[in-house]
Amino acid sequence: MKAFRLHDYNKPLSIDEVPEPKIDGPYDIIVKIKGAGVCRTDLHIQEGIWKGIVNPKLPFTLGHENVGIIEKKGTAVDWLDVGDQVILHPYITCRHCRACRAGNDMHCPYGKFPGLDGTDGGYAEYLKTSAFSAIKIPKGVDIIPMAPLADAGITAYHAVKKISPYLYPGSLVAIIGVGGLGHIGIQVVKAITPAKVVAIDINEEKAKLAKELNVDEIILAGKDGGISDVLKLTDNVGVDVVIDFVGEYSTPQNALRMVRKGGIYSIVGYGGEFRNPTIDFVNREIMVVGNLVGTYNELSELVNLYVQNKVKLKVQKFPLEDANRALEELKNGKIIGRGVLIP
Amino acid sequence: MKAFRLHDYNKPLSIDEVPEPKIDGPYDIIVKIKGAGVCRTDLHIQEGIWKGIVNPKLPFTLGHENVGIIEKKGTAVDWLDVGDQVILHPYITCRHCRACRAGNDMHCPYGKFPGLDGTDGGYAEYLKTSAFSAIKIPKGVDIIPMAPLADAGITAYHAVKKISPYLYPGSLVAIIGVGGLGHIGIQVVKAITPAKVVAIDINEEKAKLAKELNVDEIILAGKDGGISDVLKLTDNVGVDVVIDFVGEYSTPQNALRMVRKGGIYSIVGYGGEFRNPTIDFVNREIMVVGNLVGTYNELSELVNLYVQNKVKLKVQKFPLEDANRALEELKNGKIIGRGVLIP
Amino acid sequence: MKAFRLHDYNKPLSIDEVPEPKIDGPYDIIVKIKGAGVCRTDLHIQEGIWKGIVNPKLPFTLGHENVGIIEKKGTAVDWLDVGDQVILHPYITCRHCRACRAGNDMHCPYGKFPGLDGTDGGYAEYLKTSAFSAIKIPKGVDIIPMAPLADAGITAYHAVKKISPYLYPGSLVAIIGVGGLGHIGIQVVKAITPAKVVAIDINEEKAKLAKELNVDEIILAGKDGGISDVLKLTDNVGVDVVIDFVGEYSTPQNALRMVRKGGIYSIVGYGGEFRNPTIDFVNREIMVVGNLVGTYNELSELVNLYVQNKVKLKVQKFPLEDANRALEELKNGKIIGRGVLIP
Amino acid sequence: MKAFRLHDYNKPLSIDEVPEPKIDGPYDIIVKIKGAGVCRTDLHIQEGIWKGIVNPKLPFTLGHENVGIIEKKGTAVDWLDVGDQVILHPYITCRHCRACRAGNDMHCPYGKFPGLDGTDGGYAEYLKTSAFSAIKIPKGVDIIPMAPLADAGITAYHAVKKISPYLYPGSLVAIIGVGGLGHIGIQVVKAITPAKVVAIDINEEKAKLAKELNVDEIILAGKDGGISDVLKLTDNVGVDVVIDFVGEYSTPQNALRMVRKGGIYSIVGYGGEFRNPTIDFVNREIMVVGNLVGTYNELSELVNLYVQNKVKLKVQKFPLEDANRALEELKNGKIIGRGVLIP
Repeated sequence: MKAFRLHDYNKPLSIDEVPEPKIDGPYDIIVKIKGAGVCRTDLHIQEGIWKGIVNPKLPFTLGHENVGIIEKKGTAVDWLDVGDQVILHPYITCRHCRACRAGNDMHCPYGKFPGLDGTDGGYAEYLKTSAFSAIKIPKGVDIIPMAPLADAGITAYHAVKKISPYLYPGSLVAIIGVGGLGHIGIQVVKAITPAKVVAIDINEEKAKLAKELNVDEIILAGKDGGISDVLKLTDNVGVDVVIDFVGEYSTPQNALRMVRKGGIYSIVGYGGEFRNPTIDFVNREIMVVGNLVGTYNELSELVNLYVQNKVKLKVQKFPLEDANRALEELKNGKIIGRGVLIP
Repeated sequence: MKAFRLHDYNKPLSIDEVPEPKIDGPYDIIVKIKGAGVCRTDLHIQEGIWKGIVNPKLPFTLGHENVGIIEKKGTAVDWLDVGDQVILHPYITCRHCRACRAGNDMHCPYGKFPGLDGTDGGYAEYLKTSAFSAIKIPKGVDIIPMAPLADAGITAYHAVKKISPYLYPGSLVAIIGVGGLGHIGIQVVKAITPAKVVAIDINEEKAKLAKELNVDEIILAGKDGGISDVLKLTDNVGVDVVIDFVGEYSTPQNALRMVRKGGIYSIVGYGGEFRNPTIDFVNREIMVVGNLVGTYNELSELVNLYVQNKVKLKVQKFPLEDANRALEELKNGKIIGRGVLIP
Repeated sequence: MKAFRLHDYNKPLSIDEVPEPKIDGPYDIIVKIKGAGVCRTDLHIQEGIWKGIVNPKLPFTLGHENVGIIEKKGTAVDWLDVGDQVILHPYITCRHCRACRAGNDMHCPYGKFPGLDGTDGGYAEYLKTSAFSAIKIPKGVDIIPMAPLADAGITAYHAVKKISPYLYPGSLVAIIGVGGLGHIGIQVVKAITPAKVVAIDINEEKAKLAKELNVDEIILAGKDGGISDVLKLTDNVGVDVVIDFVGEYSTPQNALRMVRKGGIYSIVGYGGEFRNPTIDFVNREIMVVGNLVGTYNELSELVNLYVQNKVKLKVQKFPLEDANRALEELKNGKIIGRGVLIP
Repeated sequence: MKAFRLHDYNKPLSIDEVPEPKIDGPYDIIVKIKGAGVCRTDLHIQEGIWKGIVNPKLPFTLGHENVGIIEKKGTAVDWLDVGDQVILHPYITCRHCRACRAGNDMHCPYGKFPGLDGTDGGYAEYLKTSAFSAIKIPKGVDIIPMAPLADAGITAYHAVKKISPYLYPGSLVAIIGVGGLGHIGIQVVKAITPAKVVAIDINEEKAKLAKELNVDEIILAGKDGGISDVLKLTDNVGVDVVIDFVGEYSTPQNALRMVRKGGIYSIVGYGGEFRNPTIDFVNREIMVVGNLVGTYNELSELVNLYVQNKVKLKVQKFPLEDANRALEELKNGKIIGRGVLIP
């Protein structure tokens, strides 16, 4: 079968002819890929940012945001059938560690992450994963545009759900970056919390997208990244929570200045550095939280919102053959919403 | 009456003769000071670190950790009597803002902080504060050694209580710095959570104090601040929570390396800078939390632990006249536990 | 001034001429009543149900759901002005007990409840209460229709907020009784949680009201109180939460049969008895929670939803003179939404 | 092999000769039983109380509180070895439903409960269960006395952990019934919460056991079940939480009268009926919670406390042959602590 694989950092992916994956364990499944989302993390993998962290063995197939149809299944998989259409949680977990037993899937220390850690991902015709990663989608629902839920969506959902206990009617959440994740994050705040949302972006097209999503306020960030507008909007108090879908350049420092005393700075995007004097942590008693994808149940909850039409996805389709072009367009900020590869 | 007041930054306090405070409002109380704790924050105020933050009008009397006896009370104070011995929550709150109405005393935006923000504090014979700041202590209990509970104690208690929902039997908490706050923090972890504690200090005397407090593990920090010993102790996983009572020099960076994936870095001490790439917040999904004193109810809970003898204080008494000497000894790391001025 | 007072149980209220209330303490306010909600609890007070619980001294003025304009204020009230329009939290709290200091207003053991416990309420021209009970409403907002928020609204809001941490996209909440509280409860679930709502009532008019509120499902309860329809709707699993705004007759037993394993039965209405074998509590691990009005901050949050138009009230106005008629109509189930007396 | 099986309700168990269990699925394990706890639930099963609930097919082997050594394992079990000594969580779960994925093991609707629902339990030489139910215990620890942790222990632990977020220094928990579960419950409250404990029993021997466990207060219940003593102890306020390990006779009604306003009544024991007017749920805003065993992680946490010696078990050993005698003695209140059968 065809697969788009990373052979060298900072080079385009190669189209390789590789053997189809095979069932090894009792809970394995082989999924015929119908859609594979194109993610900023794919760019970061190509750039080698993840090299020092997960140290993947090259070459391997990218693609961690997958939907498809079950082609084969292991002997012990009795709750799913060949032919079922599924969305795939991106992580394959051990099922027996404390984190797994707490439903805290992403913190399993024994897991595999297809498309990220050297395990083959979904930029291909077939993908091998665990039946425990699959969520069955009812017949009749078009799964292709759902692909971005599998990583962009779940990550945005997880970040919002984590801060939701702190929100009440009257709270204000700032969303920095209305891209693939941010445009989902806005909708999730509106769908599952009583807070209002102010969206911040430097790009007029993306600000326009935020408007279509009925965000409460939009700030087109200028030189100060939107700080002055946020402070004006909040009588100099700041917002309750900033969710930062950029995490690079000056956004961490800007975000800190937008947060009110006792507020939360939630980091989703990455690439830059965060700095703050310890006295500010103390004097304002702020909290800074990272976010790593989300749990299997969170993906189910998000699928539920999607099916209820409470979260809509902006998707641009590309044939699998155009994977490198899709990555290029993402890099250049030309994709509105999320790109999806179709094998 | 006599009062120790700050006239100039980076200079010793002056002993001034000032008028006794008077009752103005219906909920005011005048407290005859019996003990006033000497705190690292007093040093930081003298150094001018708080200048840019609360901008106090000089001169004013220091001292924010006070116990004493009610001398006079306002007309509406019907639940306390003249002659009652009390410990004083350090903040005077408005009682009607959202934070006050939620019991979140320290986040009242309209409060006054005697001894810190230009309002006269307790390094004097008498102090004016609000009846809502006073917790009555039963006759027969010696209140003088309780003074450090009013700020050092409540801050350590608050920091531990905040992270306690994350702890279970098998959790490990690292306490960096076994000083005035740290030695209370150790005891509070043992008293209100199921976690074990590893205490880290660079000073042998303080490590010895930790031992007397039945800490589970002690690390005498060498060049790497204790990182290698923490990792050895935890099979390279790291601890669940680090509570940093130092917050200066290299401790923020060291603390980050001691925390496990999914763990918490809790900042109490301050003076230094915290830095971290955003990718580490994401990849390890860590949380960083600041701590600002604590609530009135938390001080009551801590008093309860003290009366039960579950939290013991190491106290060194100084006559009020020796306030500058006490501050000097604190600066030089010569006070084991906490200094208390006795007018 | 005129006041409607209870002289004898099971008799209509009398219109008495009584002296206007006066400022006694520094935090007192006198409010000129603009609207006073008519509540099922008023009927229960007349019936003597509360006699054994709060034992009010007769006669006293009913009315615990009040809005109006500040006419006079005590000397220490510096955050509110004469002329401000306000909605009144129904309970006057001590401000210094542990419950008050935790923001848990209703559990203050030293409070007074105008209109319920023998303290004069708002079925009159003027009401004395505490400035700490008042929430200022901006000029330009019509406060009269907001009166029901002060007790019916806050109680429904509190009940929903309490169970909200258990809800996620895919959860289903059953609301039994679409009356004064129920019709608010439905809207609050939709506004602050991701759950769907099924409304259950025996009255077609009220089922129609539920429909106008965009409830997800409506059950017109027949002989079994709606049990079979709920089970059909949920594949025999039951709903995640039942909020029972009736609490009388067979509803407690019916509600128990509608709740799924691990679910919650939340009681707001009262008058009947709840019974269950302990083995059912264990085997299904269910939770049963009572609800007592709500906190001051919760009332603020609800006012915020109202101003955002996320909670709308169905209100029927009556002149104060017709208080007895309004109570009669409530008793006979003739009021759709909530009745409000206008002095 | 030999197995004690229930053939008829209200009759003693039979000693049957049955075939040894065999590995069927990839995650099965066969455990050679070293100890099997004798539980009040075994009596309730014999009495037929569970008949209407789980409707087990007779005959089957009792015993749901098991420790032993892995004798055989399925092909996919790569984290446990033959020869490992293990304690067994009593429930075999599906691993893929929402409850399983949330770590909420007991609410899996597809699970099997050996020794309870007709699946063969541990009153035998060998037991078949899932590898996902096993917790490995380090060599050198004597596992036989740990058997009661597997059900009595985990249930008591779960009940305490569930109410622990509501406890603070100054809280008081009443434990009704110092039997197999109660004597563990007392120790868990002391080990993982800051609350004090008052133990209530009608039996002097059991009150004595409570004393050995350093309970804070002991009440030998007289005619009123201890109500008057609890009220005296708490200045008529009542306790914050009652955990009822009896759940029969008059204890539910007594427990309700011991709970303070805003307090919690937690039900673990069963057999009786609970009744309360809905107005009391509302006026006192109390909460009533059931408890069903506990999660896999909770059992791990409890094992951790046991290994730390913070929870000690009072155990009486019986040879497996004496199963019927052990059940008889339990029925007659003659076992102090917990009985364990040794094959």
